[in-house]
Amino acid sequence: MSRALNFNAGPASLPFAALQRAHEELLDFEGSGMSVMEHSHRGKVYEKVHHEALALVAKHLGLSKDWDVLFVQGGASQAFAQIPLNLLEQGKVADYVVTGAWGEKAVSEARACKTMGAGEVHVAASTEKDKSYVRVPQQSELKLTSAAAYLHCTSNETIHGVQYGLDASTPFPRSGSGDVPVVVDMSSDILSRRVDASQFGLIYAGAQKNIGPSGVTIVAIKKDLVARGRKDLPAIFQYRTHADNQSLYNTPPTFGIYLVRNVLAWVESQGGIASIEARNDKKAAVLYDAIEGSGGFYRCPVDEACRSKMNVVWRLPSPELEDAFVKEAEAQRMIGLKGHRSVGGIRASLYNAVEPAWVDTLASFMKDFAKKRG
Amino acid sequence: MSRALNFNAGPASLPFAALQRAHEELLDFEGSGMSVMEHSHRGKVYEKVHHEALALVAKHLGLSKDWDVLFVQGGASQAFAQIPLNLLEQGKVADYVVTGAWGEKAVSEARACKTMGAGEVHVAASTEKDKSYVRVPQQSELKLTSAAAYLHCTSNETIHGVQYGLDASTPFPRSGSGDVPVVVDMSSDILSRRVDASQFGLIYAGAQKNIGPSGVTIVAIKKDLVARGRKDLPAIFQYRTHADNQSLYNTPPTFGIYLVRNVLAWVESQGGIASIEARNDKKAAVLYDAIEGSGGFYRCPVDEACRSKMNVVWRLPSPELEDAFVKEAEAQRMIGLKGHRSVGGIRASLYNAVEPAWVDTLASFMKDFAKKRG
Repeated sequence: MSRALNFNAGPASLPFAALQRAHEELLDFEGSGMSVMEHSHRGKVYEKVHHEALALVAKHLGLSKDWDVLFVQGGASQAFAQIPLNLLEQGKVADYVVTGAWGEKAVSEARACKTMGAGEVHVAASTEKDKSYVRVPQQSELKLTSAAAYLHCTSNETIHGVQYGLDASTPFPRSGSGDVPVVVDMSSDILSRRVDASQFGLIYAGAQKNIGPSGVTIVAIKKDLVARGRKDLPAIFQYRTHADNQSLYNTPPTFGIYLVRNVLAWVESQGGIASIEARNDKKAAVLYDAIEGSGGFYRCPVDEACRSKMNVVWRLPSPELEDAFVKEAEAQRMIGLKGHRSVGGIRASLYNAVEPAWVDTLASFMKDFAKKRG
Repeated sequence: MSRALNFNAGPASLPFAALQRAHEELLDFEGSGMSVMEHSHRGKVYEKVHHEALALVAKHLGLSKDWDVLFVQGGASQAFAQIPLNLLEQGKVADYVVTGAWGEKAVSEARACKTMGAGEVHVAASTEKDKSYVRVPQQSELKLTSAAAYLHCTSNETIHGVQYGLDASTPFPRSGSGDVPVVVDMSSDILSRRVDASQFGLIYAGAQKNIGPSGVTIVAIKKDLVARGRKDLPAIFQYRTHADNQSLYNTPPTFGIYLVRNVLAWVESQGGIASIEARNDKKAAVLYDAIEGSGGFYRCPVDEACRSKMNVVWRLPSPELEDAFVKEAEAQRMIGLKGHRSVGGIRASLYNAVEPAWVDTLASFMKDFAKKRG
C-alpha cells in the first residue's frame, strides 16, 4: 500500500502512526478481548484513554488549572449555537469579528438563538469585500460593544485561507475589557502552532482537521465562564454538565476520543507543538514559494501577512486550467486540491499530519504544470 | 486472541465480522491509499458508504418513502431536547409515557426546552412505583392531551429492563388521533426485532447498542413532521436541515457511520431482522429460563409480559452475593454484568452482536453459582 498525498480540508489526513496504532489494537484493546469501541464509557479501560486524551489537549494547548477541557459532539457547527446559548444572556450583546465563511456561519447561528432566549449579535468588524475575504482586521477597526458577553473570532478561515496571529502585525482581536472573554473557533488550526491560550476564554474546534476523526468537538473553557453559563437550558446543552461530569454525562464518541489520544501521542512523539509548528512553517513556505516563484501563473489572493499556513488557496489564470490542475494532480495521487465550491480555485490543506514530502511533490508538480501550461 | 463475553449495556459488543472488515480496510479503504476516516465527507468514496448506511437503516426499519433517515450527533440525550425544540411549539402540549429512567430524562430535558420557546410537557402515564419500574402501562391508563404535539415513549428501558411490544398484551401506546405522531426512543432495541414503523412518526436511537459505535444518532422521521418543525431555530438543530442535506449539512461522524454500514451489512448477511429477532428471542429465553429455574435464587423484578429481551435484569438474595457473582463471572471473561448504579443488581445486555454461545455460558455459570452459593 502506498499512501495518497492527502490535502483534504477535513476530514483530513491523520498521522499514519496514529492509524497504525488503531489498526493494531482494533480487535483486541490491551488484551481485553474487545475493541476499545466495545468498552463501556464507564469502565476503567476506556476511562484511562478518555482522561489521557483530555490531559493531552490541556497540555498541548498550554492551559492553566483555570480551564476545563470538554469533549462534546456536533462539530463547530453546533458550537456556533451552543456558545451563545450558554454565554449570551438576554439583554447582552456578543461581538463577532468576521474574516470568512465560518465567521459568517457563526454569526448567523448565534442570531438564530434569540428565539431560544439568547441576547443580540453585533458584527464588530468584517473584512468581507465582494464576498471575498483576504485579510484580518486591525484592532483599531473593531467597533466593540461595551460590556459585551464575549468577542468571537475565527483563528483560521478554512475556505478563504486567512489566518490570525501569524506575526506581530496580525494579532488576535482583544476585547474592550478583561471581563469580556475572547471566544475563538480554532477548528482548522488548533494545535498546529504555539498560541498563548491566556488571551482567550473559550477555544473550540472540530477534531477532524488537526487532531482526530470527525465526530469529536473540543471545547476548552475557563472555569469562570462555565459557572457564568445559563442554567435554564436542557442539561445536554450546558457546558456545566460536561465539565461537572468530565465529559462522561452521556455516552461520548469513545472511538473518536481514542483516536484523538493516538494523534496527540504522536504530537508528543514529534517533540510537541513547537516541533509541529516548525514542520508546518516549512511546509507552508514551500508552497507559498512555489506560488510566488511562478511569475504570476499562480496567484494567492490573500494579503501576505494573513496567508494561512493550514489552508493555502490560490488561483490559476482560468477555471479551465484550475480543473486541469486538479485532475492531473489527482492522477499523481494528490487528493483534495479543489477549492471550496463557494470560492473556486485551488486549495491545499497542510494540517499537522500532511507529510513535508507530499508538499515537496506538490510544489514540483506545480512547477512542471506552470512550465507546460504557462 | 479470544473474544470477551461482552454483556455491556452500551457501548456494547459489535459483530466481529463488522470489526474485522473495519480492521482490514482501516489503513487503505478500497485502494484509495487513505483510511475511510481521512476521506472528505463531500467525496465520492465516503458518500457511497454514507448513502449505503442510510438505505440500510431505512430498509431494515421497513420505512416507506414518506420517511427521512438522518444521521445526527449527541446521542439520545441530545434528542431528548432536540425533538421538543423541533416539534413542540409554544402553546402546545407533548404527552410522555414514562416506563423507566430514560423516559424520566426525556421528560426532564423536554421541560427545560420551555425557556427556548417550546411548549408544555405532560406525563400521560408513569409506571414508577417507589423509584422502580416493572411494567409498561395499558392504553387505558394513559391520560392523553387532546391535540397534543406528539406522544413520546421509550421502546426499551435499558436500566429497568422493561420493554414495549413483546406480545399483544403490551402494545406500543397509541395517541388520541392520527394527527398526533408517536415518537419513540428505540436506543436500546432498534433493529433487534420486527416492529411496524407505520405506527410511529419519529424513531430515534443512539447507535451504540445495536448498530454501531457511540457518536452516531439515528433519527427516522416522517417527512410531514420534518416540514412541520420549527423554523426559527439555529439551522444545526432543525431536522429539516439534515433532511434537506442528506445528513451532510456539516461534517458527519464519518467513521461511525461507516461502522453502522458494516454492522447493517452483517445484519443483511444473517438473513435480516427476522433472523436477528429469532436469535435474540432464543438468547433471552435461555437467560430467563436460567432465572426462573433457579428456585428463587435469581429473581427478575419485571412483570413477565414486559421483560426486556435486550437488557435482562435480576437480583440475587443479597448485594454481597451480587458482587461475588459479578466478580466470578468477570474472572471467566463475562464482562458488563453489574446492574446500573442507580438500581443495583445484575444486568446482562443481549444486543444483536451478543453471541448465543456467550449466553449459554452465562446460563451455565448461573447454575453453578446458584448451586455453590444457594
